[in-house]
Amino acid sequence: MIYFNCDYNEGGHPKILELFAETNFDQTPGYGEDLYCGHARALIRKACRAEKAAVHFFTGGTQVNFTVIRAALRPHQGVVSPVTGHINIHETGAVEATGHKVLPVPCSVEGKLSAEQVSALCEEHYSESVPTEHMVQPKLVYISQPTENGALYSRDELASLRAVCDKWNLYLFADGARMGYGLTSAQAEYTLEDMAKYCDVFTIGGTKCGALFGEAAVIVNPELDRDFRYAIKQNGAMLAKGRLLGLQFEALFSDNLYFEICKKANLLAEKITAACREAGFPEYAPSPTNQRFFIFPDKVLGKLQKKYCFSFWEKTDDTHTAVRICTSWATTEENADALIRDIREAR
Amino acid sequence: MIYFNCDYNEGGHPKILELFAETNFDQTPGYGEDLYCGHARALIRKACRAEKAAVHFFTGGTQVNFTVIRAALRPHQGVVSPVTGHINIHETGAVEATGHKVLPVPCSVEGKLSAEQVSALCEEHYSESVPTEHMVQPKLVYISQPTENGALYSRDELASLRAVCDKWNLYLFADGARMGYGLTSAQAEYTLEDMAKYCDVFTIGGTKCGALFGEAAVIVNPELDRDFRYAIKQNGAMLAKGRLLGLQFEALFSDNLYFEICKKANLLAEKITAACREAGFPEYAPSPTNQRFFIFPDKVLGKLQKKYCFSFWEKTDDTHTAVRICTSWATTEENADALIRDIREAR
Amino acid sequence: MIYFNCDYNEGGHPKILELFAETNFDQTPGYGEDLYCGHARALIRKACRAEKAAVHFFTGGTQVNFTVIRAALRPHQGVVSPVTGHINIHETGAVEATGHKVLPVPCSVEGKLSAEQVSALCEEHYSESVPTEHMVQPKLVYISQPTENGALYSRDELASLRAVCDKWNLYLFADGARMGYGLTSAQAEYTLEDMAKYCDVFTIGGTKCGALFGEAAVIVNPELDRDFRYAIKQNGAMLAKGRLLGLQFEALFSDNLYFEICKKANLLAEKITAACREAGFPEYAPSPTNQRFFIFPDKVLGKLQKKYCFSFWEKTDDTHTAVRICTSWATTEENADALIRDIREAR
Amino acid sequence: MIYFNCDYNEGGHPKILELFAETNFDQTPGYGEDLYCGHARALIRKACRAEKAAVHFFTGGTQVNFTVIRAALRPHQGVVSPVTGHINIHETGAVEATGHKVLPVPCSVEGKLSAEQVSALCEEHYSESVPTEHMVQPKLVYISQPTENGALYSRDELASLRAVCDKWNLYLFADGARMGYGLTSAQAEYTLEDMAKYCDVFTIGGTKCGALFGEAAVIVNPELDRDFRYAIKQNGAMLAKGRLLGLQFEALFSDNLYFEICKKANLLAEKITAACREAGFPEYAPSPTNQRFFIFPDKVLGKLQKKYCFSFWEKTDDTHTAVRICTSWATTEENADALIRDIREAR
Repeated sequence: MIYFNCDYNEGGHPKILELFAETNFDQTPGYGEDLYCGHARALIRKACRAEKAAVHFFTGGTQVNFTVIRAALRPHQGVVSPVTGHINIHETGAVEATGHKVLPVPCSVEGKLSAEQVSALCEEHYSESVPTEHMVQPKLVYISQPTENGALYSRDELASLRAVCDKWNLYLFADGARMGYGLTSAQAEYTLEDMAKYCDVFTIGGTKCGALFGEAAVIVNPELDRDFRYAIKQNGAMLAKGRLLGLQFEALFSDNLYFEICKKANLLAEKITAACREAGFPEYAPSPTNQRFFIFPDKVLGKLQKKYCFSFWEKTDDTHTAVRICTSWATTEENADALIRDIREAR
Repeated sequence: MIYFNCDYNEGGHPKILELFAETNFDQTPGYGEDLYCGHARALIRKACRAEKAAVHFFTGGTQVNFTVIRAALRPHQGVVSPVTGHINIHETGAVEATGHKVLPVPCSVEGKLSAEQVSALCEEHYSESVPTEHMVQPKLVYISQPTENGALYSRDELASLRAVCDKWNLYLFADGARMGYGLTSAQAEYTLEDMAKYCDVFTIGGTKCGALFGEAAVIVNPELDRDFRYAIKQNGAMLAKGRLLGLQFEALFSDNLYFEICKKANLLAEKITAACREAGFPEYAPSPTNQRFFIFPDKVLGKLQKKYCFSFWEKTDDTHTAVRICTSWATTEENADALIRDIREAR
Repeated sequence: MIYFNCDYNEGGHPKILELFAETNFDQTPGYGEDLYCGHARALIRKACRAEKAAVHFFTGGTQVNFTVIRAALRPHQGVVSPVTGHINIHETGAVEATGHKVLPVPCSVEGKLSAEQVSALCEEHYSESVPTEHMVQPKLVYISQPTENGALYSRDELASLRAVCDKWNLYLFADGARMGYGLTSAQAEYTLEDMAKYCDVFTIGGTKCGALFGEAAVIVNPELDRDFRYAIKQNGAMLAKGRLLGLQFEALFSDNLYFEICKKANLLAEKITAACREAGFPEYAPSPTNQRFFIFPDKVLGKLQKKYCFSFWEKTDDTHTAVRICTSWATTEENADALIRDIREAR
Repeated sequence: MIYFNCDYNEGGHPKILELFAETNFDQTPGYGEDLYCGHARALIRKACRAEKAAVHFFTGGTQVNFTVIRAALRPHQGVVSPVTGHINIHETGAVEATGHKVLPVPCSVEGKLSAEQVSALCEEHYSESVPTEHMVQPKLVYISQPTENGALYSRDELASLRAVCDKWNLYLFADGARMGYGLTSAQAEYTLEDMAKYCDVFTIGGTKCGALFGEAAVIVNPELDRDFRYAIKQNGAMLAKGRLLGLQFEALFSDNLYFEICKKANLLAEKITAACREAGFPEYAPSPTNQRFFIFPDKVLGKLQKKYCFSFWEKTDDTHTAVRICTSWATTEENADALIRDIREAR
């Protein structure tokens, strides 16, 4: 069975394993205060052209999401999120478990939130005809870049969200679990520098982009960094041997590695997409990144699934199903080509 | 200005003030362990024909809602609620502040949740094609009886909800902040006995139905009553002079008082509704209880609002607005008649 | 049986019941935005000579304590409290239930916290030889005035606590559940004006000092008042008919009522103390307020308890027990005299 | 500089790095549902002779502690812990952040809790002379094996704690962050089988005992395992590439590796201890495991610290300081011998 169901089926990039082995018996301070974490922080700040940003490392996405949100909000404040946002659906209510409501906003199949939607929500909240303090105060806007469905916010869209956040005194937080695939998409109209310019805080995902595990939180707004290490510790996110996170991001952000391996995954995804289109299978959601969403007749799907594993997304009608096909930094050309051949034949 | 905007503009029924005065210098134990609370509990159990139910008193609706829910759920469990549910919109995220997600379900303008909707949500949660433990586990169904928009669940609807709750191992909790107006509605197809038969726990509202303040929680399922007094205390709901709550419910549940005063409010509401219909103002939501919802041309509304206060509900179009007109146990025939006259003239 | 076990055995001052009756059918806005609450706030601000302070009303002590603390702190911050503090022992972990650790400091039988103790705790927290962010950050100092054991902080002690709070950037919060008895004690060396001068926030207790129920939170530091009404609502503390709290504090802070009724209770307590001393029963803890603590031989106590109810405090040895004897605004001279006679005879 | 300050200065055992490399491109399911996790679970169950126990993997100690505790308790329940317990002091209030009070019990320098202490606390809680529901209900007993100060509970002590837990209906939870050093201590009077027999749940530490990171929670009481994977996910502890944890515990629990590497650390610690004793430096706390605590004159310490790093523990008087000297699975004989020589010379 060949797995295209997600982008965390394999271990990590061999360069990382090498670094682990090379440094294994070095004695370093714990809790992220070692030399390797220092290097990794510097490399990330440089890549973001954000010399003053704080960079903290986490082991996973749910963990970094709720830790950042909990640290940013007062108890009566909530998080504006597209209804399909990962925090709203797939993190077992981790944000609510820290006491904060997620305020879900309907969104298109792309999974994007617009500045207008945020604005409308705030206008309603502060309108005089409703009892303002009886409702959760919107304070942080959560988006994913790329979104859950692989779409990308353009620089202009980010700028508009920033403007509305400034107007209503909101924080903008971008979940970048698949940031590498976004930045290296052929359709990307933004850079890491833009992320740092428009967001108060965002993450750069390692787990799905070549690391064994690890997410980097880039905190641009110093208000959000105040006492942040207490938050890391309290939420169980302070790895004793923090160096393991530092080493991984050091590897990924050296020699352009992060960008090269993600770009390759995008190219393979594009080839698979071309094959699906050619074969006449409609796209469920348009995505220019490593996740692609196609609707197959159930018969065709049944046949493909004997050899390949995809992610179930939705039954679109009685005889068709939408699935996610994921490539990753570890996907081989060989496996992609095999899939492409079989899609062509399945036509 | 005459207020029809809500049902808590006045104090409490004079009978309650009398009881307070009569018993004022009696020395009693605190924290709800006095004789008056005992009497009130017995009267409520009798009215519900639920001799084994536990009855606890609270000072307000938000307080009783989150205390009951927090005590019932484990951290990964959530509350299924109609999207218009009071806990979902108008309690400043009090449920989320105790760590639990509210799982909102779209609903009609009546504000009702159907057994089918609950069933569909559970089927999706436990389906094999999604990662179950990555989502909040549905465990409690929250409804309001009457709903936020004044509608009523029939006995059959309650029975269906009970059945689906049994199937999926869910608790059924009914928020009865306006229970008196529901029970005495001309269209009521349920009794307190039904509430006790079909719900695991429900509240009987005092604040909006003649008390100065106070809600009674009737806990039918003994599982939910385990250590419940700890929950009352921890959530700041254990009134030192708990007798004040006992005395009020003793008054309300003696000599049919609760039912008589609420019935009168319903009759006045019905008269106002008749006048609106006659005058050709459309109903925004059909309600057989003390809250009525009508759409007025803004010009008409502007005129009425010089003399009367209503609750803004929604702008229905550029020149029309939906408002809530509320009667209560304290509404006088005189004021209702004045309003009716002015509605007729406004036509 | 005559009850001296606590100061909330009776209802409220008759003046309050009168006001309730007089205003019962006035129509007012809900949620504490009525005229009576406005009057009460003005009277309290005047009594504290704190024209800019915010005043909010709550129904009970646990409720106001955890609401204020939750609103003041970020998640990694904790509350410094004497080990005997009410929040540390007798509120079912309400503060912890909002996510914050109570950092208990050992204290004398008086129940007082010293500036030195607070200073030592902070010095340890920020010392370089410990991993600071692995420990809860001290941020708020909680004291009771009078303390749980009836003792009083002098103006100088309050000033010292203020100084240490300023030094370490801490809030000072005084729980004044029995404030009336403190202010009118013969030994009081502080005024309401001092409370407002030295504390960031403090409460003025109604429940134990003549009200049916109610605590006023006086928020002097505007930082703590930001969005505070959201906190009131979220924590279930926003009474629909908020006027009931306003009316009570209006009554208590008019015509010196609060001070007169509390002073009388102190005088009766002093007479009882004199009788105990004369009879040779040792004090367990020295208190100049309405709570008095005496150690009785179990035989004597057994005899007295046939007629009077006290609060058990501690077994001091095999044959002796410390009890609390409480007077209140409602204690009659007749009952106090009866007790005094029986103490004398018990000798 | 040679570090003896803690047991997490190095990476992980080379066998682990080998396994990572060997399996790196295998495609496996995520979230701990892979083959390697399965193997590791089986090996741990076998080592504990607890065929029915559930085994879950976590990345760190704070994380596993608060996740287990949060999943086990209802909101009004608390954790009995020695005052020096890691959860009480060094986890930034992570347990309180989940809403639960830690009920601290004074303990000796060894850091052990006795069955008598637990019993006394429960007797007080349920005594009739106190208002039970006004206090946090004790429900879980937290101990560390070895303790924070390196001491060990004997089989008899564990059996006594079990008995008192059974009597009062409490869970017994043992934090085994340094379990390997405990089990292989020359003075150990317990086995993994005993842990499984007497505890409801306990952890087996990887991070400090040869892993790069990782703790295994062994849940013996099935009540505590109900829906536990939801808890793992909600608390940010479900590693996407869960295989990394499985592989590490598979390595450690194969070929006796865990026990051999920890035993060696204990032997080196014992040699260092012998040198300190011989040199006349008094023990601060008696420990038979890999942490040793000695009091040095500050002058001697200053000299040693030029070459070695220890953990500051306490100033014992003006001219003496207690420090922790830690060995680990990675400590070399060469470094231990160097330290021993310098201690002898420092005499």
